[in-house]
Formats: sequence, C-alpha cells, structure tokens
Amino acid sequence: MSILITGVAGFIGSNLAEKFLKQGKKVLGVDNLSRGKISNLSFILNDKNFIFSEINICNYEEFKNFITIQHSLEQVEEVWHMAANSDIPAGIANAEIDLNDTFLTTFNTLQLMKELRIPNIAFASSSAVYGNILDTKLFEDIGPLFPISNYGAMKLASEVAISASVESHLEKAFIFRFPNVIGVPATHGVILDFINKLNENPQLLNVLGDGTQQKTYLHVDELIDAMFYIRNYCSNRINYFNIGANDDGVTVKFIAEEVVKIISPNAKINYGIGNKGWVGDVPKFNYSVDKLLSIGWRPILNSHDSVKKAILQIFKEQK
Amino acid sequence: MSILITGVAGFIGSNLAEKFLKQGKKVLGVDNLSRGKISNLSFILNDKNFIFSEINICNYEEFKNFITIQHSLEQVEEVWHMAANSDIPAGIANAEIDLNDTFLTTFNTLQLMKELRIPNIAFASSSAVYGNILDTKLFEDIGPLFPISNYGAMKLASEVAISASVESHLEKAFIFRFPNVIGVPATHGVILDFINKLNENPQLLNVLGDGTQQKTYLHVDELIDAMFYIRNYCSNRINYFNIGANDDGVTVKFIAEEVVKIISPNAKINYGIGNKGWVGDVPKFNYSVDKLLSIGWRPILNSHDSVKKAILQIFKEQK
Repeated sequence: MSILITGVAGFIGSNLAEKFLKQGKKVLGVDNLSRGKISNLSFILNDKNFIFSEINICNYEEFKNFITIQHSLEQVEEVWHMAANSDIPAGIANAEIDLNDTFLTTFNTLQLMKELRIPNIAFASSSAVYGNILDTKLFEDIGPLFPISNYGAMKLASEVAISASVESHLEKAFIFRFPNVIGVPATHGVILDFINKLNENPQLLNVLGDGTQQKTYLHVDELIDAMFYIRNYCSNRINYFNIGANDDGVTVKFIAEEVVKIISPNAKINYGIGNKGWVGDVPKFNYSVDKLLSIGWRPILNSHDSVKKAILQIFKEQK
Repeated sequence: MSILITGVAGFIGSNLAEKFLKQGKKVLGVDNLSRGKISNLSFILNDKNFIFSEINICNYEEFKNFITIQHSLEQVEEVWHMAANSDIPAGIANAEIDLNDTFLTTFNTLQLMKELRIPNIAFASSSAVYGNILDTKLFEDIGPLFPISNYGAMKLASEVAISASVESHLEKAFIFRFPNVIGVPATHGVILDFINKLNENPQLLNVLGDGTQQKTYLHVDELIDAMFYIRNYCSNRINYFNIGANDDGVTVKFIAEEVVKIISPNAKINYGIGNKGWVGDVPKFNYSVDKLLSIGWRPILNSHDSVKKAILQIFKEQK
C-alpha cells in the first residue's frame, strides 16, 4: 500500500514525503513543478520507496493514466492532496490561477479517487477560508464563511467538494486548515520576502503595511506532527481542524525586526500605511486551535519561536 | 441600463425575466437550452425590451463576445445569475455536471463582470449548501457547511467565489438560498415527477423512500417577490438570505396524496423504504427564514398551499 502526495515538490509536500518515508511508507508523488522544485526532493529522490512523476493534475487524463498504472502495481490507500496555488496575490489578480491550481486539482483528485476507489483523503485547507472576520474567535464551526481571496474561496470550494464526495464515494476525509506555515524549503511568504529584499538592498527593508498585521505562525515540523496526530486519532467521516500555534501570533513588525537582526543588523525598516498588505490579505487573525488541543495535541514552539527558527533555517539554506 | 439574466429559459429565470419586463426594465437573457426551453420564453420573446441569445456561458469567449457588444449598446447594471444544473442526482452520478453547469457558470459570470465592470450580482444559491444537518435550525450563519451533493457543494463554491469577488471588484452581492421552489413552467422536481408517473400509469404511483421526507416548498411567485424585496431593502456588500415558506414544510406523502387526488384519484401509492430518496437527498429540513422575516417580508402561501397551487398549475400546463 502506498500514499499519494499531490504537490509533493512544494514546501509542505516535500516535508510530508520525507516524514512518510521515514515511517517506512511507500510514497507516490506528483507535482507539475510550477511552484514546487525538484531540488526540494533532493533528499528523497533516490529513496527506493519514493516514486516521483512530473505531472500536471489539472490534466485529468495524464494524471489518471499515471496513477492507474502505479495503483495496479501497489495499491494507493490514501491521498494527501497538497497541490495548490501558494501565491495569494497572484490569484487575486487572476482568478483562473486559483480556479485551476487550488480548486480543479482537488476536483480531479476526487474524480480519480472515485474511479480507483481510493477511500481516504487528507487535504491542505487554509485559515484563508475564514475571510476577514474580525470580532469573533475563529472556531472551525463558525459561519458564514465568506473568504476574501480567490485562494481562500477555492480552498473552501475544495472542502465542500470533498464533503460531497464523502457522501457519495469516500470513506474518510481529513481537512486541515493551515495557518501560516514556515520553515524550509522556503518557497514564499513574508520571511523569505524580507530576506530577499535585504539580499538586494542590505540597508533598507520596505514593509507593505504599517507592520501591525498580526498572525500566528507554525513551523512545518509541528504542522506535520499535528496532521499525523489528527489522522491517527480521529475516525469521523469528515474530520476538520484548524492547525496552528496556541498563541496570539506575532506582528509583521516583529518578523521584520527579527529578520533584520539576523540578516542585516544595520538595515533601516520602512513601514507603509494601513494594516492590509494587499487586497485579500487578512490583517489580524484570531485563530482558535481549541478543537485540536481538545484531542490532546500540543505545539512545542509558539509563533515567536517558530519565526526565529525559520529565519535561521532559511538564512542557512541560502548560504 | 439593462439586467442580464443567465439561465433565462429555466424555471426561475423565465419567471424572473417576465417580472423585470413588467416593471419596464430591459432584459438581456442567455441560456444554453440544455435544461431550459425556448417555449418557457414564449410570453416574452417578442417583447422589444427582451434580448435573448442561446449561449453556453461555460464557453467564456462566446459569452464575453455577446455580452460585450450588448453592454456597449445598453449598459448592464446587474447580473441575475440563475444558470445551473437543476438535476441533483445527475450531478451526483457525474460530478462534472455540477462543476461545469453550477460552478463554472458562476466563475465565468464573475470573470465577465470583472472585465466589464458590472457592479452587482444576484445569485440563486440553494438550501442544499447546508447538507445533512439534522439537529439544528438552519440559520444563514451556522457552520460548518458540508453539503452532501455536488450540486450543494458547487452552489456553496459559487457563494464563496462571489464573496472573494466582492473583496476585489464587485460592489454588492445578493445571495438567495432557495428552498424547493414550485410552480410553472415545471422543469423538474417531485410534483412533476409524480404527475409524469401517473400519466404513464394512472393506477400506481411509486414513491422513492417511505414518504416521511419533509421539506418546505415555496411558490415561484413568492420567491421572486422575496428576491426583489431583499434586493431593494438591503445594502450590505454581501447580502445572504434563506428564502422559504415560514412553516415546517410538507411530507412527500402529502404531495403524493395531493397529486393523486387531482390527477388520478383511484391510483394506489406505493412507498419505498427509508427516508432518503437518493444519495445526496436531504431527508428533513429545518430551514429558518427568520432573517428574511426580520427585514419585513412575509410569504402569502404556506408550503401546503404552494404545493396545491403548483399541482393545479402543472396539471393545467400539461393539458
């Protein structure tokens, strides 16, 4: 039996593949390498339990042909569907990006699971499904959910396509609403962005917005630990959880200062105006992980520590 | 200024076009005539204020070319997006039906509105977004929403694509979660189904399920009245309402008996087993219209009366 990971060459997918392989699982990985990189798989490409194919799962026939052959050799027991657009502003400028990469990838994955009778899906959803709810703690069961980015909308659309599939052909679904996840290989996000800016100009760090935006951050190692915990602990047909650090998060200002401290201690930080970085960005996040805590999982690192760890890791990775 | 109605040759779309024309509005209507019928438009096809084109809005270029020309002649001020699959079981058998007809029609409509800067959308959503929630009254703000049919999933996906569009380019959105709507022209649904069965065999009416399924029904005239009320009364950027009768609904048994009474009084009714008609069917509905009542709208007919009125109308329509 093997695990299929979509988006395996991405940030989360590559870490996930590594963890599954360490557990002795066989892993089948696909990625179109549009945002994922083959170099993210360098540690595992030669592992005999890992099979990788460069496939665009938006192309259903190509996807189906490859998986059908592999499935006949070694049955796929579970799909970990991580493939998605990861560039939220790009998806706001052009809604087709999230339609194709965030939603139709899910739709095709579900179609394939139906055809091949693969029973279980684990899905990388997002805190972006909550949109811009400011006054309420973001529990999994609040409503209404009106995302403000196409990314959040297509993640939520994916969740509900999964729920309909559970009614018709899936056995179990695990829906993980990710917070901002950090670590290596760094593919996008505010830390990498700040480091890249300082690499270009070590004297000045221009920050979008006034720096008061506050979010929680979770290190990718903790994220995967939480996903495995949920996967093994929960047995409902639809299991949906916010995953995140158990704290109030850190501000953009904190991240900017920490990055400057490590990368370029003499740089001046120049803040913008307002607390929105771009259209569709959620300024402050009041994200509840009570449900996850209630089943016994605990994060080791808080947002502050995760940010610091990730800055050091990305700094080292770039050397 | 004109109103664009998608799915104009369908049940709701054709009634809506007629009401707008009666108000003196200019109406631009498109339909691919896959489920809609040109005969549904017979009352208005010669109206000088009505322009119809047979267009599949899944074909974005075709859709865009036609609307762009019309928009340059007479500005479209608002889109009433009614186009969707209306055959829930068909969409469960083949998820691509709801992907294309229920979701991608919305996606393309939003893309076009962005390109042509049309500010307002009114959208036919559905009570199917609530899935199979049994113990809770279905208020608009409950969560989580996990639909059990692809139809419900793609209606909810449409809602959230609209919410993201409100953040980026729309001015206002009106989201109407429809109950079971009945009346003429009858295109689908339990009443027409029963009448058709009795036309085939006047002695016997076979009913899927044990007849205890209970739902609310609203007559299409009331539905449109409610939509216009919300459209004129509400001014939030996203306005979302359950629309329905203010009662507990009627059972399938009641409908079967009423249809038999009018169509074929001597027919025997034969019930099935269980209270689910098909995979994805929601057995009982506890649908709240409190929010709609709170802004002052009142339905005139209850579910019983709406069902009786519709049976008579469909019976007459078939003669």
